[in-house]
Amino acid sequence: MPSEFDLIRRHFTRPARHTTLSVGDDAALLTPRAGMQLAVSTDMLVAGTHFFADAEPEALGWKTLAVNVSDLAAMGAEPRWAVLALSLPAADEAWIAAFARGFFACADVFGVDLAGGDTTRGPLNLCVTIFGEVPAGAAITRGDARAGDDLWITGKPGHAALGLAHLRGEAALAPAAAHACLAALHRPQPRVAFGQALRGVASAMLDVSDGLLGDLGHILECSGCGARIEVEALPLAALRACGADEVLARRCLLSGGDDYELLFTAAPTRREHLAALAGKHGLPLSRIGTITANADELVLREADGREHTTTHAGYDHFA
Amino acid sequence: MPSEFDLIRRHFTRPARHTTLSVGDDAALLTPRAGMQLAVSTDMLVAGTHFFADAEPEALGWKTLAVNVSDLAAMGAEPRWAVLALSLPAADEAWIAAFARGFFACADVFGVDLAGGDTTRGPLNLCVTIFGEVPAGAAITRGDARAGDDLWITGKPGHAALGLAHLRGEAALAPAAAHACLAALHRPQPRVAFGQALRGVASAMLDVSDGLLGDLGHILECSGCGARIEVEALPLAALRACGADEVLARRCLLSGGDDYELLFTAAPTRREHLAALAGKHGLPLSRIGTITANADELVLREADGREHTTTHAGYDHFA
Repeated sequence: MPSEFDLIRRHFTRPARHTTLSVGDDAALLTPRAGMQLAVSTDMLVAGTHFFADAEPEALGWKTLAVNVSDLAAMGAEPRWAVLALSLPAADEAWIAAFARGFFACADVFGVDLAGGDTTRGPLNLCVTIFGEVPAGAAITRGDARAGDDLWITGKPGHAALGLAHLRGEAALAPAAAHACLAALHRPQPRVAFGQALRGVASAMLDVSDGLLGDLGHILECSGCGARIEVEALPLAALRACGADEVLARRCLLSGGDDYELLFTAAPTRREHLAALAGKHGLPLSRIGTITANADELVLREADGREHTTTHAGYDHFA
Repeated sequence: MPSEFDLIRRHFTRPARHTTLSVGDDAALLTPRAGMQLAVSTDMLVAGTHFFADAEPEALGWKTLAVNVSDLAAMGAEPRWAVLALSLPAADEAWIAAFARGFFACADVFGVDLAGGDTTRGPLNLCVTIFGEVPAGAAITRGDARAGDDLWITGKPGHAALGLAHLRGEAALAPAAAHACLAALHRPQPRVAFGQALRGVASAMLDVSDGLLGDLGHILECSGCGARIEVEALPLAALRACGADEVLARRCLLSGGDDYELLFTAAPTRREHLAALAGKHGLPLSRIGTITANADELVLREADGREHTTTHAGYDHFA
């Protein structure tokens, strides 16, 4: 019977596209292009904490890499290389093969070389470190939002959370809606091309992994600003169309994570340019509020004009 | 009570020396110097597999980073940045503080910036990805040993294994010897400066983590060569001086891992230069054999001229 090391070699060895020296030496060798900074992020996913131990391995492989790709998208960086460290409880070839299929499907879509890794025996744990390139000085951080900037979100935020609610029996979705929401949950599509298109346009950006309001809090904290969100402008209709009632739709959109949409700020002078970009990328884009000068204060304005105000610690209780 | 996230922030936030943007955004931003390639390695250490769950956390912190630093030393690269992903079963501040002390002690000695990380709840698991710089084309890989090259090893190989044997009650060392061997086991000293000095000198190199013979096998496999080891040339005397008998000394030196000494090959014309380098770095250096053209064949020649021969799968059974 092959060891897990043989299995890893069998399923994780692919030709590298832009890596000088890959798996099999003490270290991989990468050659960043001239004038580029390197953006680096690491994420550890643990069975029982981030996913169920019996999670479908192909989807898990996709998501393990996709959440890292999304961190680079949120910097406006281009994903280039990743290393994968795996701790596995047993040498289960079907599991490893399916995980590798999902991982490389994502790697292929986003142009990522698997440059190295480590495999060991232990409780199921998946740790990816990803490296991308961004022209020096062009990365979009969390700290440069300014009062008066618009607040934008890409795509269909809340669908992953609605899929999870469906799995938990908290929502009963029609088959087509359930399919779409579960796809959002299991195979998130990081907004890599759009993130790069926002260089020089967005003033601050991150990807929504823990919930829109909580993650917005990171921008406000880093930028020393506040924000006002217009409930009427939130893309709730798509969640209602999937079968969510008003309370659930709002909860999924404002505090559901796992969509990996981009939340960003930009000067109002950029509206026309952003509308054109959204059209070019075929990506829905919602302008959901405004950055204010009231550091750390978040206001939700309802359609009827009523306002709720909270500060950082309270963001999560809004939804 | 502070969460583990507060604790991590408290104990793992240090000023960065050469990182453009560090912990706290979606990704860290690094600016490799012009003309440099990036050497990248990842290692995952799991409680129960790589260390005991009750291991002394300060030594564990040192070793977690040191084993990664050693991978870069083995490429002739200069360590620059690391990211650390941690899975912790509980928020134990004393443990986290001690682990961080050991980790940063090592980071300070070897000039490594902690550029980012991830913390999560789960079984104890430590994953470091390290990246360093090496002038383009100057990295020392495993694949360029040539027949006729000398085979060299740095330092005091086998002392970490002797320390482990002492802990297991397989050897009874005098206090001073036990102290030295346990220091080799718990606080390995990666040969970073010497590894860089070997650029353009060593033809192939790696760090010994799994045992001298087993790791030599990787060089032979990658280079398509064989090797002959002269038992008389092995630095066994230092192990005997610590109190090991002949059988234990040989086992520790040939198949003990965890010393993180450099095993390398170099043309015989380099002997004088290497002796000078060893003197300059104050590092013992042993010329223990020769690379041969017999692919995958390893010969051990005893002092009396008897020879044992094996092929790759048998390396571990020699000791």
